[in-house]
Amino acid sequence: MNTSESGFGEALSAAAGRAERMLETCLPPAEGGRGEAELAAAMRHAVLNGGKRLRAFLALEVAGLFGADGPAAERVAAAVECLHAYSLVHDDMPCMDDDDLRRGKPTVHKVWDEATAVLVGDALQTLAFEILADPATHADGGVRARLVLRLAQASGHAGMVGGQAIDLAAERAEASLTGVQVKRLQALKTGALIEFAAEAGAIVAQAPEADIARIRAYAQALGEAFQIADDLLDVTGTEEELGKRVGKDAGAGKATFVDILGIKGARARAAELVAEAAAQLAPYGARAARLAEAARFVVERRW
Amino acid sequence: MNTSESGFGEALSAAAGRAERMLETCLPPAEGGRGEAELAAAMRHAVLNGGKRLRAFLALEVAGLFGADGPAAERVAAAVECLHAYSLVHDDMPCMDDDDLRRGKPTVHKVWDEATAVLVGDALQTLAFEILADPATHADGGVRARLVLRLAQASGHAGMVGGQAIDLAAERAEASLTGVQVKRLQALKTGALIEFAAEAGAIVAQAPEADIARIRAYAQALGEAFQIADDLLDVTGTEEELGKRVGKDAGAGKATFVDILGIKGARARAAELVAEAAAQLAPYGARAARLAEAARFVVERRW
Repeated sequence: MNTSESGFGEALSAAAGRAERMLETCLPPAEGGRGEAELAAAMRHAVLNGGKRLRAFLALEVAGLFGADGPAAERVAAAVECLHAYSLVHDDMPCMDDDDLRRGKPTVHKVWDEATAVLVGDALQTLAFEILADPATHADGGVRARLVLRLAQASGHAGMVGGQAIDLAAERAEASLTGVQVKRLQALKTGALIEFAAEAGAIVAQAPEADIARIRAYAQALGEAFQIADDLLDVTGTEEELGKRVGKDAGAGKATFVDILGIKGARARAAELVAEAAAQLAPYGARAARLAEAARFVVERRW
Repeated sequence: MNTSESGFGEALSAAAGRAERMLETCLPPAEGGRGEAELAAAMRHAVLNGGKRLRAFLALEVAGLFGADGPAAERVAAAVECLHAYSLVHDDMPCMDDDDLRRGKPTVHKVWDEATAVLVGDALQTLAFEILADPATHADGGVRARLVLRLAQASGHAGMVGGQAIDLAAERAEASLTGVQVKRLQALKTGALIEFAAEAGAIVAQAPEADIARIRAYAQALGEAFQIADDLLDVTGTEEELGKRVGKDAGAGKATFVDILGIKGARARAAELVAEAAAQLAPYGARAARLAEAARFVVERRW
């Protein structure tokens, strides 16, 4: 690990710490009557699981770039992590990807059961919107409503869930997806929420519209690079490094960037995207150095 | 059916028609690529299913009472129906209530499969928040954010989903729930969203805070009456009338108001609540006649 990577790792950890302290206060305490205490405990298990918090980092770092360093940005980061965690809980269920491990720990439906996993995912999605809509996130209701609208667009039928539906259909179909289809699948399934995380940082900081658009373009490149790296890790990583099963995409007949581009081609495309992400940040100079590093980091990571 | 009931039935149908026309425009069209078209078709199946639209009626009728008769109120009604439909899709899944029929038609996981049911529920929840947060719902962002916040509170871990978690835990436990616990369970699981529907009508019409509180109290009484009637129908109704299995609550060992109060006691309590709901509406006189009828109707209905 060179100095720049190590510095970035520290920045990522610091952002994770800030997001997790906020999550601690936003998540319900694991107490109360029969049923409610278990629901809260399972929600906490799903969210406070040692994730790397890339989405929280993006929200916090972009908000900081435009002058919003306080709890508002931390609430946005917490909301994105709740939304992300909900998608993982539902995705891990037996009827979906059927995963027993997530970051090396048993998944919600293994510790509790499938009904609890359904409810935990549902409640975490709701909590994400609750956090954003709360006046504590921003004094201006228009800003809060915009955050809610953009998160809904990024995560619903025309975003993340739409991507999962394409993924499901592709697994069942005889013919494999084309390169264009894989790109669309990944842009919706993974890219849209990463894009939202960065954009939300700019929205909560009330950055000018031109900057919001630029940040979105940066995050779009980073998101695609992230997914290509994920596909590469599924082929080249180890279970120990990743804390989850590897080779499962190929086993499940999932269409990946590696299928389309090959390992070498996928690596080249990832490098292109890192450059594209950095180019979008050029106007901000050194102040955006960590965001540029983030794009390199997602490609070079071993998790 | 007496004249007043018939008049109310027409008002309910008219509200259902308005909500459904708005839902048609808010739901994604059942087209697009592999996966996306199926997701949209399944979302439409889940929402446009001939429901009675009591929640939509409450939102529209209350909004009208405070002078909001246009598309804004219809969007609020559509959002509540999306949220309600999501909860039914997940609730019907094999790991939850395991129901094959809903309003006489096969449930989403029967027509498609469990994975699709998870995604359809998820996407319908997101769509509810998307509709509320859209500038088309209200020009004032503060009003939109308030609608989102209240819907999240009503439907998340401290509302509907919390109620479902108590319900799950109760089914598994040896000891049955006390009357206080059944009341809390039902207030969260069913009452909170009914309360939101009415309150949201007042919020979108920018009614004074005192009126919003009054409408909430009205809807709280109506919601409890609704749930008592539901428990009574499960014991006394027929499958043909209800379009779903009957006697299933007793079979599943669910705690109901009938267990606690007996059939006669439950009927008496329902009548009390109808009177309570009507009393809350007294200041509005004849203009609130249909809302008062709604409380009577939920108790006398055969569905």
